[in-house]
Amino acid sequence: MAKQLSGAGLRGQVAGKTALSTVGKSGSGLTYRGYDVKDLAQNCQFEEVAYLILKGKLPNQSELDAYKTKLRGMRGLPTALKEVLERIPKNAHPMDVLRTGCSMLGNLEMETSFDEQQDVTDRMLACFPSIICYWYRFSHDGVRVDVETDDDSIGGHFLHMLHGEKPSELHEQVMHVSLILYAEHEFNASTFTARVCASTLSDMHSCVTGAIGSLRGPLHGGANEAAMEMIEGFTSPDDAEEKMMGMLERKEKIMGFGHAIYSESDPRNEIIKQWSEKLAADVGDDVLYPVSVRCEEVMWREKKLFCNADFFHASAYNFMGIPTPLFTPIFVMSRLTGWAAHVMEQRADNRIIRPSAEYTGEELRPVPAISERA
Amino acid sequence: MAKQLSGAGLRGQVAGKTALSTVGKSGSGLTYRGYDVKDLAQNCQFEEVAYLILKGKLPNQSELDAYKTKLRGMRGLPTALKEVLERIPKNAHPMDVLRTGCSMLGNLEMETSFDEQQDVTDRMLACFPSIICYWYRFSHDGVRVDVETDDDSIGGHFLHMLHGEKPSELHEQVMHVSLILYAEHEFNASTFTARVCASTLSDMHSCVTGAIGSLRGPLHGGANEAAMEMIEGFTSPDDAEEKMMGMLERKEKIMGFGHAIYSESDPRNEIIKQWSEKLAADVGDDVLYPVSVRCEEVMWREKKLFCNADFFHASAYNFMGIPTPLFTPIFVMSRLTGWAAHVMEQRADNRIIRPSAEYTGEELRPVPAISERA
Repeated sequence: MAKQLSGAGLRGQVAGKTALSTVGKSGSGLTYRGYDVKDLAQNCQFEEVAYLILKGKLPNQSELDAYKTKLRGMRGLPTALKEVLERIPKNAHPMDVLRTGCSMLGNLEMETSFDEQQDVTDRMLACFPSIICYWYRFSHDGVRVDVETDDDSIGGHFLHMLHGEKPSELHEQVMHVSLILYAEHEFNASTFTARVCASTLSDMHSCVTGAIGSLRGPLHGGANEAAMEMIEGFTSPDDAEEKMMGMLERKEKIMGFGHAIYSESDPRNEIIKQWSEKLAADVGDDVLYPVSVRCEEVMWREKKLFCNADFFHASAYNFMGIPTPLFTPIFVMSRLTGWAAHVMEQRADNRIIRPSAEYTGEELRPVPAISERA
Repeated sequence: MAKQLSGAGLRGQVAGKTALSTVGKSGSGLTYRGYDVKDLAQNCQFEEVAYLILKGKLPNQSELDAYKTKLRGMRGLPTALKEVLERIPKNAHPMDVLRTGCSMLGNLEMETSFDEQQDVTDRMLACFPSIICYWYRFSHDGVRVDVETDDDSIGGHFLHMLHGEKPSELHEQVMHVSLILYAEHEFNASTFTARVCASTLSDMHSCVTGAIGSLRGPLHGGANEAAMEMIEGFTSPDDAEEKMMGMLERKEKIMGFGHAIYSESDPRNEIIKQWSEKLAADVGDDVLYPVSVRCEEVMWREKKLFCNADFFHASAYNFMGIPTPLFTPIFVMSRLTGWAAHVMEQRADNRIIRPSAEYTGEELRPVPAISERA
């Protein structure tokens, strides 16, 4: 008889080992390979953190330079992949585009041996921004954007293709911070999807394609998009407070607050909130940021719910001119790091993930002749 | 503190409820919604079983006729999807093709509400054979095959496109049996992938795309392909015995035998074995079938390992002229039924699947300045 787990959705059940991160160990902390995410966000570029998560150590200067040079050289898209992206309609879901682009890449540049796992991952890190921007600019602006820019960073590459000009230093900096904050988060649903897939010894593109599909779900990724849709409907802090009180009274779902694992606060919130404030000052905003702050106050006062990583990401991305439907694809550009590292970890000590189920269906019965069926 | 599960890979741990199937309840049985798979394989067409698994009851004659008519009308491929398939090279992995085709379909025909889940599933059931054959015939033969045939069944549709002529009654019958045998198997890794994805409330195409990626892994799908590669290297039963004894002595992995859940026998084996024997007589084979029988005898005598569903599928598919790399895509055409039914079941009583991990990594440490790093 299979064991009954206590919680639905495997909540609180150990499904494997990881050396990659701790989530909420003290109720609020997040560490990547032993480093506090706040420490990393303050002192590192995203490429350093990707290197850390994937290879297990922070790079020294020459390692970092070499890694960034490698990634810069992998931004181009094969012609067949561009032709596929050109056939995806403007009204498609950007996560479906990325899922399809990743899957197509696997046909053109198949991982034929696990020895290639680091290179295949680096290739995806370098070209996912290309995939999303090539499709977005082609379908929305009719432009075949040049994806092989010489920008220093992954975040800079993304903003450059999106806006057609090099980003400011501030914007590139915020992208580093944002990509660091989203890079890894233990056995969340998309990462667990990648690990289940990896446990069959499938290829890296299959694992990441599956993870993108899971992150697409509204219970997982997409909270920052939902937060944006809410706050852009508020015209002032007072308006926000009035409308939120109405939403709370009608028990409507408000996205961007609370967390399944963190109980006291989300350590990523205070970091992105600071950067959102700086961006607001930079663009001269006097609505979106104050509105967001009021939302935070109301939710804490009324529900003792704190902002999670997603809430101030909404205004921050908006201040950088990023269209709301591209918020979750940015999450992918970042979390790809964690997914790939988990796939590598699963491969290094693998057993196929194959749980059991509690049967609730019909008892054994004979197949009736088709003429006898109701 | 999260609970430690006893087995790696969640083995024997209940991860949810299902009314769809029981696997190995008495050590050897397999039931779909209470019906023994042997009973179904003997008395039903695949479309009846798909209807049963997806809708919970065996159809009567008019329901079956209507369902088959619906599926027949959904075989066509959108132009953009054909153009994508034409850009996938001949040497791609057919499972990567199907994964990409499914993902692309999601861009063109998005599931925008769970109310559409049955129609979206039926569409995939009807057009997955079109996707795989359109790509295969185009990339291998340079032919743009007509995918909108009037064949009575899904299996007939597949064989017709593959070979360019209507299949014999025997071959269409064997496809019914084969697709029934592979249709559903509880919380295996690909199905569990689909359920994890579904638990984020993602769309059906994401769930199925992820499941295809997991089935691609050599520890999951693909055993029938590996079995085929082995048996076609044997020239006679005696040659098979001699070479297998050598493989066993060298402790090489032999695919198509034993099972993670079944302990005594795989109930699907005796069914497909009978049909493989009939096909052998039909084509006048006097090597592949006797060789397969000898392999079965040797493995039982030496290792007490029984043939699983995959072993006699290898010779059966080969007798029908199906190229070995298309064996696992046929598995998808069938198992799609189970995946979709599990997604529907997960959606009906959902909690996001988010387990915990045992942390084995570094303790908290400060980020050193880049100039201080080794």
